[in-house]
Amino acid sequence: MTRRDTVANGLAGLETPALVLDRDKLQANLARLRDHLATWPEVAFRPHLKTAKSLDVADLVSPGRGPITVSTLKEAEVFAAHGFRDIVYAVGVAPDKLPRVAALNAAGARTRVILDNLQAAAAVADFGREAGRIVPTLIEVDTDGHRGGVRPHDPVLLRIGEVLAVVGALEGVLTHAGGSYGARTPDELAAFAETERSGAVAAAERLRAAGLPSPVVSVGSTPTAFFTRDLTGVTEVRAGVYMFFDLVMAGIGVCSTEEIALSVLATVIGYQPAAGQIVVDAGWMALSRDRGTSSQPLDQGYGLVTDADGAPLGDLIVSATNQEHGLIASRSGAPIDPARFPVGSRLRILPNHACATAAQHDRYHVLAGGALAAEWPRFGQW
Amino acid sequence: MTRRDTVANGLAGLETPALVLDRDKLQANLARLRDHLATWPEVAFRPHLKTAKSLDVADLVSPGRGPITVSTLKEAEVFAAHGFRDIVYAVGVAPDKLPRVAALNAAGARTRVILDNLQAAAAVADFGREAGRIVPTLIEVDTDGHRGGVRPHDPVLLRIGEVLAVVGALEGVLTHAGGSYGARTPDELAAFAETERSGAVAAAERLRAAGLPSPVVSVGSTPTAFFTRDLTGVTEVRAGVYMFFDLVMAGIGVCSTEEIALSVLATVIGYQPAAGQIVVDAGWMALSRDRGTSSQPLDQGYGLVTDADGAPLGDLIVSATNQEHGLIASRSGAPIDPARFPVGSRLRILPNHACATAAQHDRYHVLAGGALAAEWPRFGQW
Repeated sequence: MTRRDTVANGLAGLETPALVLDRDKLQANLARLRDHLATWPEVAFRPHLKTAKSLDVADLVSPGRGPITVSTLKEAEVFAAHGFRDIVYAVGVAPDKLPRVAALNAAGARTRVILDNLQAAAAVADFGREAGRIVPTLIEVDTDGHRGGVRPHDPVLLRIGEVLAVVGALEGVLTHAGGSYGARTPDELAAFAETERSGAVAAAERLRAAGLPSPVVSVGSTPTAFFTRDLTGVTEVRAGVYMFFDLVMAGIGVCSTEEIALSVLATVIGYQPAAGQIVVDAGWMALSRDRGTSSQPLDQGYGLVTDADGAPLGDLIVSATNQEHGLIASRSGAPIDPARFPVGSRLRILPNHACATAAQHDRYHVLAGGALAAEWPRFGQW
Repeated sequence: MTRRDTVANGLAGLETPALVLDRDKLQANLARLRDHLATWPEVAFRPHLKTAKSLDVADLVSPGRGPITVSTLKEAEVFAAHGFRDIVYAVGVAPDKLPRVAALNAAGARTRVILDNLQAAAAVADFGREAGRIVPTLIEVDTDGHRGGVRPHDPVLLRIGEVLAVVGALEGVLTHAGGSYGARTPDELAAFAETERSGAVAAAERLRAAGLPSPVVSVGSTPTAFFTRDLTGVTEVRAGVYMFFDLVMAGIGVCSTEEIALSVLATVIGYQPAAGQIVVDAGWMALSRDRGTSSQPLDQGYGLVTDADGAPLGDLIVSATNQEHGLIASRSGAPIDPARFPVGSRLRILPNHACATAAQHDRYHVLAGGALAAEWPRFGQW
């Protein structure tokens, strides 16, 4: 299979390990969420570009340079330089980062920050007064006890709102139901989406009832974006990993493994007869250490193995990794016949977590129509 | 503590997250292993640069541009361009990579590959015949069932040796007792070192008894390099993570946490009152997803927390991560007093696995004498 197919699709010419992005699957994934959210034309969509970190992907995701979400100021700066003008930096802002955010706003890229505590709110207010530049701010709301945020009914919500509103920095609320990653059924996912929606709306209404502005009500995660049934009161939805999907999303039931657009091309370098396992040149450096499926019913190890064309190979997974070695085993433990995978043959590995695997690489090797068509750079750091 | 100290040591001026390297600790670690191996002056030392991936670190590790080990051809090429002339690429070679290795050798950087199977040996021999360039090769020997390699007494060892020797490519054997990472006591570690030594020597002697050359007998891992008591028959020792050390090595007993030269500087961005946890801006993107201490008696989460000066803070660990968020909890579960860590204050996080954490960053911020002294670039990819 492998040599002929990789010659046909152009992958034979790549050095391994290499990050492969199937543009057709990416575009289908983009269309799928866009179509789903078309049910609510009054709600804006603000895709998260932390998974992609690529101008080429951003151009497909948002050809019109619409609203985006980012996880670092580096992302904000790179995408702002590329013409994006409406950015939410969706990690609680550290006071030391406010000058960089203000510079983005001053340069015409409206960049909002989020925060969930009085100290950070005071820092935004003080910075606004001292620097004369108001950084537009959303209050992060915790709707599922997952990570950061103020609970919608916590009295501190209004105190934060007041501190921000005095300098004109308050623009609304934002929540992320990261707990939805633990859901397993459509009804559970819909329940998470409703918790996210109702919590964010409740927080916004409390602010408004206190005479404070909250024009923005921002919610979202890939699972809740797909399974939401009601967006009443919401002004925008965010999602990121839906572009590529991954095994964690497949395990939750948000996608099938066939929809996963990202994989790592690897070469067989040996065989361990005692273990019945094959060895490839993609270790955790190429795959990441992410073991997100370890808590799911179907543990995919460090990734699910396909042939070089992306076709399934049964139950083969990457069972263990070192820095530059991956061990491939069958999930059943049955020895792999080494004749199936001679040294030098090529395989592809679907990632547990697209964000983490992509972050290990500086470029995407792009397949279109099943053949290698382009190389898209990606960036990292902060 | 934090603001005053970070101003004093220069760390206050860094954007976070940032990778910090303590040059004094690095140099002490280098001296410690050098002194230990001085017991065997006839044995060469071949440090592994896969952890550092830095020319500046390489200059400290081997000012005389001595033998080195690498995990990628990118490392080989970068270090060869910097003057290193004796390289072992210690990952089983994929046939497609032989032209790059041959180019290094042709350019004067003697670069050996390793392999553990007949197909790869045939590829080296065929490449030598067809391209007219012999790639010097070591046979990888499996002394502990850890990963790759031929068992010392496997009949295939001699067949591989013959295939390589016919074209003049055979130069010896190499083993890596990665299983030593599971050891816990000095005696267990010494036993792993002896298994590594005796297995490699046995393989070399079998080759020689069959009339095949094996001038090189290469062994090593950081734990076995420190705990070896006998190197009879060994010609060179390799070790890599000893430069920086990390929590996994501390858990094995190879170092103390005070000797760990690498840390990630982070900023407090919030507090979760319900969980009694603080939130910092270093998530898995900055720390890596490595959970190497999860199988050790003392699980350090995603890293052990110190103050900005590197002083211990009791039992604080990074208990959970998202892409750009780290949650800091006390190991006991006792709530953290948020007054100790106001928003904006700085902390440092010692890594589970130096190789994985360093790989998430493109530079080291170097402390010397406790103060910020330099910025050293690091590289990645393949």
